[in-house]
Amino acid sequence: MNIRPLHDRVIVKRIEAERTTSSGIVIPDSAGEKPDQGEILAVGHGKILENGEVRKMDVKVGDRVLFGKYAGQTVKVDGQELLVMREEDIMGVVEA
Amino acid sequence: MNIRPLHDRVIVKRIEAERTTSSGIVIPDSAGEKPDQGEILAVGHGKILENGEVRKMDVKVGDRVLFGKYAGQTVKVDGQELLVMREEDIMGVVEA
Amino acid sequence: MNIRPLHDRVIVKRIEAERTTSSGIVIPDSAGEKPDQGEILAVGHGKILENGEVRKMDVKVGDRVLFGKYAGQTVKVDGQELLVMREEDIMGVVEA
Amino acid sequence: MNIRPLHDRVIVKRIEAERTTSSGIVIPDSAGEKPDQGEILAVGHGKILENGEVRKMDVKVGDRVLFGKYAGQTVKVDGQELLVMREEDIMGVVEA
Amino acid sequence: MNIRPLHDRVIVKRIEAERTTSSGIVIPDSAGEKPDQGEILAVGHGKILENGEVRKMDVKVGDRVLFGKYAGQTVKVDGQELLVMREEDIMGVVEA
Amino acid sequence: MNIRPLHDRVIVKRIEAERTTSSGIVIPDSAGEKPDQGEILAVGHGKILENGEVRKMDVKVGDRVLFGKYAGQTVKVDGQELLVMREEDIMGVVEA
Amino acid sequence: MNIRPLHDRVIVKRIEAERTTSSGIVIPDSAGEKPDQGEILAVGHGKILENGEVRKMDVKVGDRVLFGKYAGQTVKVDGQELLVMREEDIMGVVEA
Repeated sequence: MNIRPLHDRVIVKRIEAERTTSSGIVIPDSAGEKPDQGEILAVGHGKILENGEVRKMDVKVGDRVLFGKYAGQTVKVDGQELLVMREEDIMGVVEA
Repeated sequence: MNIRPLHDRVIVKRIEAERTTSSGIVIPDSAGEKPDQGEILAVGHGKILENGEVRKMDVKVGDRVLFGKYAGQTVKVDGQELLVMREEDIMGVVEA
Repeated sequence: MNIRPLHDRVIVKRIEAERTTSSGIVIPDSAGEKPDQGEILAVGHGKILENGEVRKMDVKVGDRVLFGKYAGQTVKVDGQELLVMREEDIMGVVEA
Repeated sequence: MNIRPLHDRVIVKRIEAERTTSSGIVIPDSAGEKPDQGEILAVGHGKILENGEVRKMDVKVGDRVLFGKYAGQTVKVDGQELLVMREEDIMGVVEA
Repeated sequence: MNIRPLHDRVIVKRIEAERTTSSGIVIPDSAGEKPDQGEILAVGHGKILENGEVRKMDVKVGDRVLFGKYAGQTVKVDGQELLVMREEDIMGVVEA
Repeated sequence: MNIRPLHDRVIVKRIEAERTTSSGIVIPDSAGEKPDQGEILAVGHGKILENGEVRKMDVKVGDRVLFGKYAGQTVKVDGQELLVMREEDIMGVVEA
Repeated sequence: MNIRPLHDRVIVKRIEAERTTSSGIVIPDSAGEKPDQGEILAVGHGKILENGEVRKMDVKVGDRVLFGKYAGQTVKVDGQELLVMREEDIMGVVEA
C-alpha cells in the first residue's frame, strides 16, 4: 500500500540514530531543534505557484535528507512508521 | 441531498479506526496531531489564484485521503457525519 | 429596503435550527465551530484581485449555503436579522 | 473646508441611531461588533494595486453605507464629527 | 539643512492644536487614536512596487495633511521638531 | 578589511550624539524610538524583487542617513563599531 | 560525505572567536543578537521565486560571511559541527 503525497509534500522513512552514527553524522545534544535524517519514499508533483504553475521537486525517491526533528507528521503504514513533510522542511540532501 | 463545496474545499467521509487497522494503516498514539483517513464525496472547482484563474483539484471523488486529526469542520447531512476541508489540509492519497 | 454588499460579500438570511432538522441536516453538538445554514439574499460584484480584475462570485441569490457559526456580522433590516459575510466564509452550497 | 481622502479612504458622516430606527434598520444589542450607518461625503482616487495601477472605488459621494462600529478614525471638521475609513471597512451600500 | 525622505516617506511639520482650532478642525477628546494635522516639507520619490516600479506620491510639499496621533517618528532639525512618516499613514489632505 | 553587504543591506558608521548636536540635529529625549545618524560605508547590490530582478539602492557610500535607534546589528571591524541594516530601516538622507 | 543544501540554503563552518579576534573583527559583548563569522562549504541552487524561476545565490563556496548568532541549525557531519542557514540570514561577506 502506497501514499501519493499532494503538492510539495514528501513521504520520508526516518533513519534511526544508531544508523546515523555509523554513517558519520552525529546529532549533537545541544539545545534547539536538531536535524534528523531519512530516506524519501515518495514525492508529490511539486509546489503550486501563485501563477498556477507547478514547480518540480528538488528531491527524488531514494534521496537521504536532513530535516528538523519536529518536521512533518507521523503516519504508520503497513506497520511502518513514516513522516509526511513539505519539501520546504528539508534542509539538504546527504551525498555519501 | 448533496453539498457542493466552494473553491478548493472537499467533502470527506471519515473512515473509522476499525476499518483503518484492517487496511494496514495504524494511527500511532504518540503526541501531536495524528493523520486520519477518509473518502472524498465531493470536490470544489479549485483554488482561486491571485491572477483570477482557477487551479483544478489534485484529488477526485472516491479518493481515500490522509488528513490531520483536526482538519476541517464537521457537518451532519441526512444523518451522516461529514467533514468539509480544504485540499491544502490533505496530506496524501492512499493507493491500495 | 435593500443592501448591496461590496466586493466579495454576501447578505445571508439564517435558516433556523428547526427548519434545518426537517431538511435533513443536523448540526452536531460536538465541540468546535459548527456550520450553520442560510439563504443568500444579495451578492457583491466579486473579489478584487491584485491585478485589479474582479473575480465573479461562485454563489448567487437564492443559494442555500453552509457557513461557520460565527461567520459574518449581524444587521437587522426592516425587522429582519441578516448576516453580512465574505464568500470565503461559505463552506458549500446545499443542493436539495 | 474639505478633506480629500488618500487612496482607498472615504469620509463618512455617521447617521445617528434615532434616524437609523426610523429608516427601518435596527442595530441589535447582541454581542460582537455591530454595523453602523453613514453617508459618504468624499472618496479617494482608489486603492493602489501591487502592479501600480489604481482601482476605482465602488462607493461614491452620497451613498448610505453600513460599516463596523469601530471602523475608521474620528475627526471633527468645522464642528462636525466625521469618520475616515477604508473602502474595505464598508460592508454594503443601503439602497432605500 | 534638509532631509530627503526615502521611498514613500514624507517629512511633516506638525501644526499645533491652537492653530488647529482656529482653522475649524477640532480634535475630539474621545478614546482611540486621534488624527493630527501637519504641513508636508519634503516627499520621497515614491513607493517601490513588487515589480520594481516606483509609484509617485499622492501628496506634495505644502500639503496640509491629517494623520494619526502616533504616526511617524520625531526628529529635531535645526531646532525644529519634525515627523518622518509613510504616505500610508496620511489619512487625507485638508483643502481649506 | 571590508564587509560587502548582501542584497538591500548597508554598512553604517554611527555619528555620535556630540557631533550630531553641532550639525544642528538634536535627538529629543521623549518616549519612543528616536532616529540616529550615520554615514554609509558600503551598500549591497539591491533588493531582490519577487520577479527576480534587483532594485538598485537609493542610498550610496558617503550618504549621511537617519535611522531608528534600534535599527540594524552591531559588528566591530578592525576596532571600529559598525552597523549592518536594511535600506528599509533608513528614514532619510541628511543634505547639509 | 557532503550535504547538498536545498534552494537558498548554505552550509557554513563557523569560525571560532579566537580566529575572529586575530582577523581584526571583534564581536562586542553588548546586548542583542551578535553577528558571527563562518566559511561557506556548500550552496543551494537558489531561491524559488513566485513566478517559478530560481534566483542564483549571491554567495559562493569559500566566502567568509557574517551572520546572526542564532542563525541556522547545527548538524555534525563526520565529527565536524556545521550550520545550515538561508542566504537571507547572511548579513555580509567579509573581504580580507
